[in-house]
Amino acid sequence: MTMVLDKFLKRASVRSFSDARHVGQDTLDAILAAAAHAPSTGNMQLYNVIVTRDDAKKAALAALHLNQPAAKDCDVLLTFCADVRRFGQWCRARHAENSLDNAGGKLTAIIDAAIFAQQFVTIAELSGLGCCYLGTVTYDLDGFSKALETPDGVIPLFSVAVGYPAEGAMLAPSDRLPLGAVVSRETYHDATPADIDLYYAEKEQLEESKRFVAENAKETLAQVYSTVRYPRELNLALGRSLLQAIEAQGL
Amino acid sequence: MTMVLDKFLKRASVRSFSDARHVGQDTLDAILAAAAHAPSTGNMQLYNVIVTRDDAKKAALAALHLNQPAAKDCDVLLTFCADVRRFGQWCRARHAENSLDNAGGKLTAIIDAAIFAQQFVTIAELSGLGCCYLGTVTYDLDGFSKALETPDGVIPLFSVAVGYPAEGAMLAPSDRLPLGAVVSRETYHDATPADIDLYYAEKEQLEESKRFVAENAKETLAQVYSTVRYPRELNLALGRSLLQAIEAQGL
Repeated sequence: MTMVLDKFLKRASVRSFSDARHVGQDTLDAILAAAAHAPSTGNMQLYNVIVTRDDAKKAALAALHLNQPAAKDCDVLLTFCADVRRFGQWCRARHAENSLDNAGGKLTAIIDAAIFAQQFVTIAELSGLGCCYLGTVTYDLDGFSKALETPDGVIPLFSVAVGYPAEGAMLAPSDRLPLGAVVSRETYHDATPADIDLYYAEKEQLEESKRFVAENAKETLAQVYSTVRYPRELNLALGRSLLQAIEAQGL
Repeated sequence: MTMVLDKFLKRASVRSFSDARHVGQDTLDAILAAAAHAPSTGNMQLYNVIVTRDDAKKAALAALHLNQPAAKDCDVLLTFCADVRRFGQWCRARHAENSLDNAGGKLTAIIDAAIFAQQFVTIAELSGLGCCYLGTVTYDLDGFSKALETPDGVIPLFSVAVGYPAEGAMLAPSDRLPLGAVVSRETYHDATPADIDLYYAEKEQLEESKRFVAENAKETLAQVYSTVRYPRELNLALGRSLLQAIEAQGL
């Protein structure tokens, strides 16, 4: 068991990819096929992943991803979508109604898609590939929907940049909060101010964190997160567009 | 790589657990700590998992889970929650605002929680444990919120039943759609009626599927899914309660 744990404790996202070694389609498909055995609600597999390899298409998506280096330099870009459309097409072809063409169905599909994506990332990483999630899809849902030609009932959620890690790519695991911050016993543990100090002490003391605070001329790391990296206006906007897609009906 | 793939191709959910062998807290915590290294948006870890071991509490949750055998008979029940509350408490303690106390932040947290949960399930399965997702949390979000004492900003999403598999527990992998049903190349592949026939042929021909159709006196498997197992009314109701939690503000 220790060996299993060790691999997962040491995993890290990869943002810098090899120019020399490429991910073959057979390799990618084998990993996707294995990942599709991840649990899914009622075995319905309410997701679709769009594989972008074409250079021009990849450059267009990278621009929508704000030209993050991982998006520009990866070998293959996968965009994971919640999908209640295919299920609906099956229903229509079999004298049934699409019972999932609504917010409940789409929220279920969002969870299924995330579970499938993480199973893909795990298998890819265990196979020697490097991956990086890109949350920037929801920053411009319309742009991604147009570029990927996703119709009603299909919601692009995030991309994963994939490739073999560049030589010397940073493979240091990111810092994590102490377990007590994310695990409750029997009932939800509501943090006290002393808990909060304890949970975030290590993160706030990291050199990288201090640099973020200084570079952004802020007083605290929480201010960097909540006003620079993930500001309220951004979250309000992405919430609006995602809710609109979730609440839309009529496939 | 073949060995890695093989494990994931053969995985199966476990619904029947050993009475004799129990999951120690150290084992569970070690798996949770490793799973917490799963990717998360901005390393913010916008989730909390509530571990239920107490017999009376487990029985109460199992009742909310409609007394599914996996919920009643598991050794430990984990309920995974999207959590923007702890981040908000940190912000408040550090002269910052909670920029995630809105639909965008909570949808991000839902995806983070699902990724964390699947990393937990994978590590648990690779360590010899059996797991089964229970989607029934959203069927009665108020009931689960009360039982688990989750405050504003914390949304219970689903549970995972955990234990060592019972001797002779069914470990046959579930059927999956052909890869073409869930993977698109460059742009979304919208299924044709012929595609749909092809995608669902194997599933519809399974003995288990034929039995579902007969037992429920339906004409097609799609009718069983869309009117018995996951009917529209159920999805409308769970969508309403989940959207209410997502749109609520004011931690």
